[in-house]
Amino acid sequence: MFRSHTCGELRIEHAGTQVTLAGWVQTVRKFGAITFVDLRDRYGITQLYFNEDLNPQLDAEPLGREFVLQATGTVTERTSKNANIPTGMIEITISSFKILNKSAVPPFTIQDDTDGGDDLRMKYRYLDLRRNAVKKNIELRYAVNRATRDYLHSQGFMDIETPFLIKSTPEGARDFVVPSRMNAGQFYALPQSPQTFKQLLMVSGYDRYYQIVKCFRDEDLRADRQPEFTQIDCEMAFVEQEDILAMFEGLVKYVFQAVKGVAYADTVQRMTWEDAMWNYGNDKPDIRFGMAIANLKSAFNLGGRIQATGELVNGADFKVFDEAETVLAIAVPGGAEWSRKQTDELTEWVKRPQVGMKGLAFIKYNADGTLKSTIDKFYAEDRLRGIAAAARAKPGDIVLILAGAEERTRKAISDLRLELGERLGMRKKDEYRLLWVLDFPLFEYAEDENRWVARHHPFTSPKPDHIETMINNDPFIMSAADYLRHPYANIKANAYDLVLNGNEIGGGSIRIYQRELQEKMFAALGMTEEEALHKFGFLLGAFEYGAPPHGGIAFGFDRLCAILGGSETIRDFIAFPKNNSGRDMMLDAPSTIDDKQLAELRIRLEKVNPE
Amino acid sequence: MFRSHTCGELRIEHAGTQVTLAGWVQTVRKFGAITFVDLRDRYGITQLYFNEDLNPQLDAEPLGREFVLQATGTVTERTSKNANIPTGMIEITISSFKILNKSAVPPFTIQDDTDGGDDLRMKYRYLDLRRNAVKKNIELRYAVNRATRDYLHSQGFMDIETPFLIKSTPEGARDFVVPSRMNAGQFYALPQSPQTFKQLLMVSGYDRYYQIVKCFRDEDLRADRQPEFTQIDCEMAFVEQEDILAMFEGLVKYVFQAVKGVAYADTVQRMTWEDAMWNYGNDKPDIRFGMAIANLKSAFNLGGRIQATGELVNGADFKVFDEAETVLAIAVPGGAEWSRKQTDELTEWVKRPQVGMKGLAFIKYNADGTLKSTIDKFYAEDRLRGIAAAARAKPGDIVLILAGAEERTRKAISDLRLELGERLGMRKKDEYRLLWVLDFPLFEYAEDENRWVARHHPFTSPKPDHIETMINNDPFIMSAADYLRHPYANIKANAYDLVLNGNEIGGGSIRIYQRELQEKMFAALGMTEEEALHKFGFLLGAFEYGAPPHGGIAFGFDRLCAILGGSETIRDFIAFPKNNSGRDMMLDAPSTIDDKQLAELRIRLEKVNPE
Repeated sequence: MFRSHTCGELRIEHAGTQVTLAGWVQTVRKFGAITFVDLRDRYGITQLYFNEDLNPQLDAEPLGREFVLQATGTVTERTSKNANIPTGMIEITISSFKILNKSAVPPFTIQDDTDGGDDLRMKYRYLDLRRNAVKKNIELRYAVNRATRDYLHSQGFMDIETPFLIKSTPEGARDFVVPSRMNAGQFYALPQSPQTFKQLLMVSGYDRYYQIVKCFRDEDLRADRQPEFTQIDCEMAFVEQEDILAMFEGLVKYVFQAVKGVAYADTVQRMTWEDAMWNYGNDKPDIRFGMAIANLKSAFNLGGRIQATGELVNGADFKVFDEAETVLAIAVPGGAEWSRKQTDELTEWVKRPQVGMKGLAFIKYNADGTLKSTIDKFYAEDRLRGIAAAARAKPGDIVLILAGAEERTRKAISDLRLELGERLGMRKKDEYRLLWVLDFPLFEYAEDENRWVARHHPFTSPKPDHIETMINNDPFIMSAADYLRHPYANIKANAYDLVLNGNEIGGGSIRIYQRELQEKMFAALGMTEEEALHKFGFLLGAFEYGAPPHGGIAFGFDRLCAILGGSETIRDFIAFPKNNSGRDMMLDAPSTIDDKQLAELRIRLEKVNPE
Repeated sequence: MFRSHTCGELRIEHAGTQVTLAGWVQTVRKFGAITFVDLRDRYGITQLYFNEDLNPQLDAEPLGREFVLQATGTVTERTSKNANIPTGMIEITISSFKILNKSAVPPFTIQDDTDGGDDLRMKYRYLDLRRNAVKKNIELRYAVNRATRDYLHSQGFMDIETPFLIKSTPEGARDFVVPSRMNAGQFYALPQSPQTFKQLLMVSGYDRYYQIVKCFRDEDLRADRQPEFTQIDCEMAFVEQEDILAMFEGLVKYVFQAVKGVAYADTVQRMTWEDAMWNYGNDKPDIRFGMAIANLKSAFNLGGRIQATGELVNGADFKVFDEAETVLAIAVPGGAEWSRKQTDELTEWVKRPQVGMKGLAFIKYNADGTLKSTIDKFYAEDRLRGIAAAARAKPGDIVLILAGAEERTRKAISDLRLELGERLGMRKKDEYRLLWVLDFPLFEYAEDENRWVARHHPFTSPKPDHIETMINNDPFIMSAADYLRHPYANIKANAYDLVLNGNEIGGGSIRIYQRELQEKMFAALGMTEEEALHKFGFLLGAFEYGAPPHGGIAFGFDRLCAILGGSETIRDFIAFPKNNSGRDMMLDAPSTIDDKQLAELRIRLEKVNPE
């Protein structure tokens, strides 16, 4: 062993002890004839004190930043103590030392506030990982991993590994594929999730399964997506939705306690998907704050419910609202006091291309009870009061109103709500609010193909009450305009998402476990019988031999860690992430391979640029 | 929840309790008007008793094998108890039941001794997994997983995930590759192990890393290999070989205790690679028994040592021995009593093509001290006694002698020793003997390319005493005949294998951490500077910024589980294994993929058969 102690463990009670430390030189400070070195390892920083006797050696072998140093000496009480670090009461009076390895000058500083840009830090990820800010994330990730395993183990779950070289059955996302050399012309696929395997394990009787497992999706990457990502993947047999919700809110609460020391005693709130969409404009509401959306006018029959027909805004000769598909409003506390500059800025904000609105109308509901509005030449006071009431505005609030096409307007007001929540300090980093979103639609309409797609995935069970609707109706959609009147539009799924502070951290469903229903589902999604058998014959087969009722959930492990770490960037919580082009900058991968490798696989590359 | 209890937990003290169980119908037995059903789940089997009141329902919905049944009733003391199962004191007097799912007749019986052949069981793996024999293996695997994590956690190791989509750097085994759609013409590779990543983590300061992780090798599969397999992968910084040995024999002892209840108190034995090869004929000796090999004659300078020059057998006009490269012997206890039939059978055994010897000579060292031998017309008694003494034979033993080409003969006598150990009951399933094999050669000679290859891998450090030999000599080999005289032939590695009952369960090394030495290693393996930079530039780069001394080990998780489960077939310990052609029989993977997928990846298949 190159050390007797770590750089994080020595305290005043060790004074007088002879110790050997090994670590990295964080700083070297010379004061006349004496030298102080801060030595760093995973566990902390300890100050080393070199007296003048060591100067000949220090002169012969000068220490530099990030050198690997082994040093022996005696723990001594410091004269000038540092209360900011746990080892700050002591230093080591060095008697001998050895440079174990030298270091070139790093391309960026190994400090919390580094001077390294993104690309540089990705290329030298092994140096970036030394920074305390990154190390804390990796440690937090391990803590979440460990707590998850502890909880699931205590609940009788077994970690069972499922294969990585499987069959390509692209449904939705694209598979990464792996050419097989031994079976020329054939390919494995990397799993997008272990979905069918965990269901087979339920059929096999392993009634509580989990895995913390890598999954793969070959999608065009958005800012915060990775081609390989990690899931906490779980499945249970002989359970109903209620059992799953209890088990896994238990998991998240356990993780909060173990990792953050947060006791989440409250019952986890629940909300239907419809309510989430109507009141928050999206399916993963941040419920740390209110500002629910008022539907002043809505063209669509979102989730089978007509909440506002438009009488609040129509017929006032205000063309913008008259012609809009949808008019939505939120009441912002304290907004009645906003200056013209502030409302102008917010108007510009909603007009940015990312939000895409044409403008912003508002009604100030002043503290004295009077109203002031940008639309008061169209609406008499009583109508304005009606709108304010619909938005549940109180004196002192401002009512912000957006109008336009249904989907875009809903998204815009949701974004606006989140932005204002942020600006008004209502989205507190240290507050955790969990929410179950329930009763999702089973199907979504795919306009380009005029057919149904599975909102969650093809293995999700309809609500028991809706099974007959599914079985007894032809999935065929007569015309795109009519899809909302198709009985399938109102089938709800036994599916659930767990939302934390406005982020979906987990989602799952009770599964189909009857062959007939599963076949009907595949047919509803436009698969021929032959296709269904080719892709999922093994699962349909398994359902013939005594499949138990079952369901499960999967958590996005990277995202869960990021949120618990107070960040929204999952890349910061992955030891070796890829960039937005799916490239590992450190390895320089992907890369070309040898012709010999291609020949063995019997594949050829298409020429991208003719030579 | 579909059940109040599992099928494994009810005992006599529950008598009178109303319970609901759910599980699979193992057997249905009708006795006149009453019916007994054995209901099975992951936890056990419980007997259900249906009285005649339930016959109308049983007639309307007859139960069959593997039906999924939910049944409610009262725990009752059995009249005829079954002491063989934990629930054998009770049965459930059923008041109501519901068939949750039916089952077709399974293609093989779900019992310990199934009637299903290998192929059938692989195709219906989800049914095979229901069998108790397989379930026990999967449970054992999870127990080993859990114990491993517990131990490593307690020792300060962190589970840090490394990427699966990496760069292809084939050294030795073939990589599986993954075409990149976003970077047309380029490929990722699946990791053969996280080797370079764990070393980078050491450079980053995460001084105790582990992972239980899937690895991939595209090799022609032997009987007991899988294209994807699992490793317990570990690395430590600031350690020497001794620290690693202590840490990881600790791990295995912990696993023995936790999983098998075996307290392994003994010091783990150690043996150099040379001793293992000389005395046991292979590098993973089973030391549960003796029968060490005597070198009567050896042409090769195996490991720098000349142990026997041949004077024991040469010059007696026995051409077979005179002309043989090598003559090796073992003494088998009690063999002097063997009949002619037994020695004939053994002679046939060594002549089988798998062993490939031309014959077997022997000397019976009778209990009365007399000798009897197949070669006594060539050797006078004193020479026979000399041979017997070299083989450490005692009265009552037989000395078995094989002669032939060095490598084949060594392997044959090793196989013969293991076979006889097996036959004589010396390889006890419930006895565990660990052995560290140390001081491996750093290099192996690759005859076909007339160059050095790394015996372990290119990141293994030479013994400190041998670094200079490596640095100061040109790796070039003048002629194949002379390779043993090259200084590199005698460089020993800081490498170690952990052997359990004759199986290598883990192996590792202290790593190179100096750029210059690593460059020399790549050069020694025949890599140009350019190649080395292209493949491992990131690692060479990392070694410039303060790489600490480090080392590690990886355990073959599948094999470790198999040995602990008393089997030698890893496939039995993998939930969804592939067959010997790398095919998943259940999924029917690999398979062809859509032209659309190929087009997106910009690859074309070579036609295997012209159309």
